Amino acid sequence: MTGGPDEHGAEDLRAVAWGGDHVRLLDQTVLPGRVRWLDIADVDGLIDAVRRLVVRGAPALGAVGGFGVALAMVQARAAGWDQARLQREIDRVRAARPTAVNLAWGVDRVRPLVPRGLPAVVDEALAIAREDGVANRAIGRNGADWILARIGRGAPERGAAPVRVLTHCNTGILATAEWGTGLGVIRELHGRGALAQVYVDETRPLLQGSRLTAWELTRLGIPHVVQVDSAAPSTILRGMVDVAVIGADRITAAGDVANKIGSLGVALACAEAGIPFVVAAPESTVDLTARTGAEITIELRDEEEVLRHGDARVAPEASRGYNPAFDVTPAKLVTALVTEHGVLEVSAGQTPADRFSGERAGSASRA
Amino acid sequence: MTGGPDEHGAEDLRAVAWGGDHVRLLDQTVLPGRVRWLDIADVDGLIDAVRRLVVRGAPALGAVGGFGVALAMVQARAAGWDQARLQREIDRVRAARPTAVNLAWGVDRVRPLVPRGLPAVVDEALAIAREDGVANRAIGRNGADWILARIGRGAPERGAAPVRVLTHCNTGILATAEWGTGLGVIRELHGRGALAQVYVDETRPLLQGSRLTAWELTRLGIPHVVQVDSAAPSTILRGMVDVAVIGADRITAAGDVANKIGSLGVALACAEAGIPFVVAAPESTVDLTARTGAEITIELRDEEEVLRHGDARVAPEASRGYNPAFDVTPAKLVTALVTEHGVLEVSAGQTPADRFSGERAGSASRA
Repeated sequence: MTGGPDEHGAEDLRAVAWGGDHVRLLDQTVLPGRVRWLDIADVDGLIDAVRRLVVRGAPALGAVGGFGVALAMVQARAAGWDQARLQREIDRVRAARPTAVNLAWGVDRVRPLVPRGLPAVVDEALAIAREDGVANRAIGRNGADWILARIGRGAPERGAAPVRVLTHCNTGILATAEWGTGLGVIRELHGRGALAQVYVDETRPLLQGSRLTAWELTRLGIPHVVQVDSAAPSTILRGMVDVAVIGADRITAAGDVANKIGSLGVALACAEAGIPFVVAAPESTVDLTARTGAEITIELRDEEEVLRHGDARVAPEASRGYNPAFDVTPAKLVTALVTEHGVLEVSAGQTPADRFSGERAGSASRA
Repeated sequence: MTGGPDEHGAEDLRAVAWGGDHVRLLDQTVLPGRVRWLDIADVDGLIDAVRRLVVRGAPALGAVGGFGVALAMVQARAAGWDQARLQREIDRVRAARPTAVNLAWGVDRVRPLVPRGLPAVVDEALAIAREDGVANRAIGRNGADWILARIGRGAPERGAAPVRVLTHCNTGILATAEWGTGLGVIRELHGRGALAQVYVDETRPLLQGSRLTAWELTRLGIPHVVQVDSAAPSTILRGMVDVAVIGADRITAAGDVANKIGSLGVALACAEAGIPFVVAAPESTVDLTARTGAEITIELRDEEEVLRHGDARVAPEASRGYNPAFDVTPAKLVTALVTEHGVLEVSAGQTPADRFSGERAGSASRA
């Protein structure tokens, strides 16, 4: 693995890229202090990077899944793996993180092309990334349209007050192939002159909010303040926020949403305050094989992420930690699910199952 | 200021003590890594220690208020202050933290004794601390009785399942003169063999949960796990917790509760899950001069507490932080308010105003 300087501007920054015979990842574990790329040359390295959250974010993991299959093929050729071994290695990539559906979705989409050779696989993986960018821009437009209509704010040029948004975790360029999902909605609002400020939850334990989202917002010149996660309910109930916008790692047929731990608390506060709780995600995040959130495996991560800050142990050595990476927000608290194809008002009864029945059930294999 | 080794056992540990001519504080900023006492010899040092949270916790601040008046008298004698200057310095102690009512309450209780000399003031301050310990043990018993009755758990010796408790911030020995309030309830449950486990919110930004509560629980041999604050709603809604128990920094006549930022999110989750949200605090925390939470000044602390972890900046240099120290949980979400004199079922309509009307309005000056 080698590093590189920050040679990219805000617009062409990529969290994930294909390097010809390796996967190139922006190392999100060292942001915002350092901007460093890692060149990942084998499956073990890719799985390690995914688990350490060098790259994270559901849509970005879709692209990683696609490129991961290509990487396994490169390694198979060099190491002389047979087909059975290659398929086992692809299975390992597919299972590197259990909750995010997109990683498996990306693998499953390119896997049928393995018999046609590396160029066909790489082309399909690049298509995943390209389509994700197109989808995210549509999510941004759909989300901004819905939010401005819902909260009754007209065009800013006619004097409407700009919107105050709260977000949790990171759903921007760093979480996607490009543009962002939840942060794409925020960028779209900003681009229309309709955004006042973003409250950024720091997103413990790994601080994707303060480290990554704040870094992206700084690059984009978007006004924001960082707060501890537990401040969100108070900020919302004191009337300082008009809408919360988050992403999703998996969305069930009933509209339950698995996302970064802490999303549920934001949703409860939005319901209490009567403001919209908006989930922005590509349709690839919808998993119709899961009916409700009870069927979603919640990834338990290393307790040390909670018990340490950097090198310093903050809890007594004898104390144990509990570190679920995700929570599940029930459909009744999801005001709007924004995808590239439109908006479902989930808490009002528009479920993904109704919207996508039949047509969507096999989208991963159909693609 | 001088430090000292940990010469105290769990039972006689004190966060605040009078040293004859100085205030002795256990430095809570360096726990759990170091156990160090600071000897505070002047008003400036005491105010700095209170602001830096060397000592914190509403009931402990009541004792600090009392000892602070004594300290100002010692300094007045040494420095030749006149009465007007002495009273101004006492006012500064009283205002060192704006949200916690107990600091001002402690000052106001001993201040009328200043004309009678230092021994009378010290005696009254010691009485505050002693009475706090007695009150806290009563809070523990009242809280444990109410919780076991409410959630329908009989005596553990008859086979009843032990109780799983979630707590936020620190409400133990370190937050009080002795025994603890919320943590006193937990200790009482543990002492009765009726406690299964405590989920400890780490309590960002200053980690009073992972640093202080986990340290106390470790000393007491009470089973616990530390989680990020934003995990609390999920832990509660997944049925892993029977009751949440927290403390309070100020309680209004209507029963609204100002407490550590994040308490409100716990309360919302408890209401959604249908489990009790219990506030444990001495009556001195009730401020009948405030009708509702809207009248409470919320202390905004330094944004650096959010933007840094120890010496490391975690957010971009250009990012700003928003750092309210407290939030306000509305009375409708407070299932029970446990004081040394009994339990008010606040969300069912039993308000502090009704309970304490007349009799309590002047308790600080009456005492």
